[in-house]
Amino acid sequence: MAILIAADLTPDEWAAWWPALQAALPHETLLRERSSTPAEQIDIALVANPHGGELQGLPALRLIHSLWAGVEGLLADSTVPVDVPLARMVDPAMTEAMAQTALWSVLGLHRHFFRYAEQQRAGLWRQRRQWRADETPVAVLGLGHMGRSVARRLALNGYPVRGWSARQAEVDGVVALAGDAALPHVLAGARIVVNLLPSTPATRGFFNADTFAQLPRGSNLVNLARGAHVVEADLLAALASGRLAHAVLDVFGTEPLPAGHPFWAHPHITVLPHVAALTDARSAAQCVARNVQALRQGLPLQHLVDRIRGY
Amino acid sequence: MAILIAADLTPDEWAAWWPALQAALPHETLLRERSSTPAEQIDIALVANPHGGELQGLPALRLIHSLWAGVEGLLADSTVPVDVPLARMVDPAMTEAMAQTALWSVLGLHRHFFRYAEQQRAGLWRQRRQWRADETPVAVLGLGHMGRSVARRLALNGYPVRGWSARQAEVDGVVALAGDAALPHVLAGARIVVNLLPSTPATRGFFNADTFAQLPRGSNLVNLARGAHVVEADLLAALASGRLAHAVLDVFGTEPLPAGHPFWAHPHITVLPHVAALTDARSAAQCVARNVQALRQGLPLQHLVDRIRGY
Repeated sequence: MAILIAADLTPDEWAAWWPALQAALPHETLLRERSSTPAEQIDIALVANPHGGELQGLPALRLIHSLWAGVEGLLADSTVPVDVPLARMVDPAMTEAMAQTALWSVLGLHRHFFRYAEQQRAGLWRQRRQWRADETPVAVLGLGHMGRSVARRLALNGYPVRGWSARQAEVDGVVALAGDAALPHVLAGARIVVNLLPSTPATRGFFNADTFAQLPRGSNLVNLARGAHVVEADLLAALASGRLAHAVLDVFGTEPLPAGHPFWAHPHITVLPHVAALTDARSAAQCVARNVQALRQGLPLQHLVDRIRGY
Repeated sequence: MAILIAADLTPDEWAAWWPALQAALPHETLLRERSSTPAEQIDIALVANPHGGELQGLPALRLIHSLWAGVEGLLADSTVPVDVPLARMVDPAMTEAMAQTALWSVLGLHRHFFRYAEQQRAGLWRQRRQWRADETPVAVLGLGHMGRSVARRLALNGYPVRGWSARQAEVDGVVALAGDAALPHVLAGARIVVNLLPSTPATRGFFNADTFAQLPRGSNLVNLARGAHVVEADLLAALASGRLAHAVLDVFGTEPLPAGHPFWAHPHITVLPHVAALTDARSAAQCVARNVQALRQGLPLQHLVDRIRGY
């Protein structure tokens, strides 16, 4: 049997993935295109932005493994077989990278480093009041794999962290609350909100005028999840009113962020080009290899997506 | 007996220090000026930038306690009595703040966040290669109270840390090397160098063309100690040649950094207005109070300065 890589990758991305997958799966036949092999010999597909219909007509398919953490594109693609287990990427290097980005953002907001960068551009030497980490409560919304890692890392570095998720979760060193009723309490107590919610129809537009109104004046938003979580016009209004002091945004409704978009030049928005956590092909290939081996040996698969919940 | 506060503080600083010292020393007489009290009743002086001669003519003086961590100004002031024990400030909140600033700087350099800020100003969406923390060796120069705290915090967050100091030190999770012979090895292996050396005549101009030449091409400097440690012209030359990729500077030869200084507008220099670690009057007053109580009870004093070593 063979493994089809159905991935729309750049040449640079191929240059990273191909040797990593070959090294992690030395006894497997890896196909970079489907045409060369009979369809019934393909039992696993590794996918990243597959072309529409690319996974159809594969009668032996037993596992679809995303090379990315987010799978909302695959779930929205009606040509992706729904009766084949779908696994998403849980790459330890990517999880670690997300924790680093969240920590860097929180440190920057807590210690005024974004303001000091603004001061430098204005040639202004001015010291601002230094708060302690334990005086800077952080809310982490979304306690999936990424959110839990972020919450733990922030707690490890001295921040009082409240986590919030739709269903109850447990995270070491973090007060974890769940459900709609707890949300106003979590928002009202946060100096900094870090968004790592899953991307589902229910979380679309989660950060809107109503949500921002529940935050303390002068609080900050770090969006590391999806652009669709934030109503952009409401974010700009919250910054203009002083409800929000600053936003660090890694994700946007349209990516790349279009030229001339008001976020680019906004003094209180930090724009990152969707780099909070990139997949590291070396460790990600190991994640794939563990599931491929589990499938071959009849063992349980890891990181399967619940297609009803959407993550 | 009474405690003289010989400190050139701004009104804001007085507003923080005065209630904090009163709360920490409820049974002591605190003097904001010397004139009102006979000199022989003053046995302790709390000092920050004292006026020249302010500590002379105090026959009962038994302790000079700096309100700041750095004491090179006091050591250079020939009117400060040399036969009275001199203690420096070791404020846990300040030590913690220094660890935060170092970690923020290292995360920013490691994960290209300074470059992404530059890209934002240019409206450029471009992802850069993501390295793991364990691929990003950091050298911490100076393993005093601050340097050890910084080295530990970086190691806790996944960085391979080499510490270096004039005399051998031990730090959990850190490879600590000592002496001139070890320095080239430490410099050659560093992607990021964090300076926390003490400020002494021997460390003046420590970072010069020779030091920079020993770093790998494209490495980075974080100076959180003293401006005098860095030869500014050599730093600019190292940035121009690409030897250094970026410098984060909290301290300068002249502070505030003068208007028009080339550091202000340099795209690869981050200027902070000497805020890496501010004293927190609340916890710092506790540090003072412990030494005052020790003196009153005849117990050993802490954080005494070795006037020969200079720190």
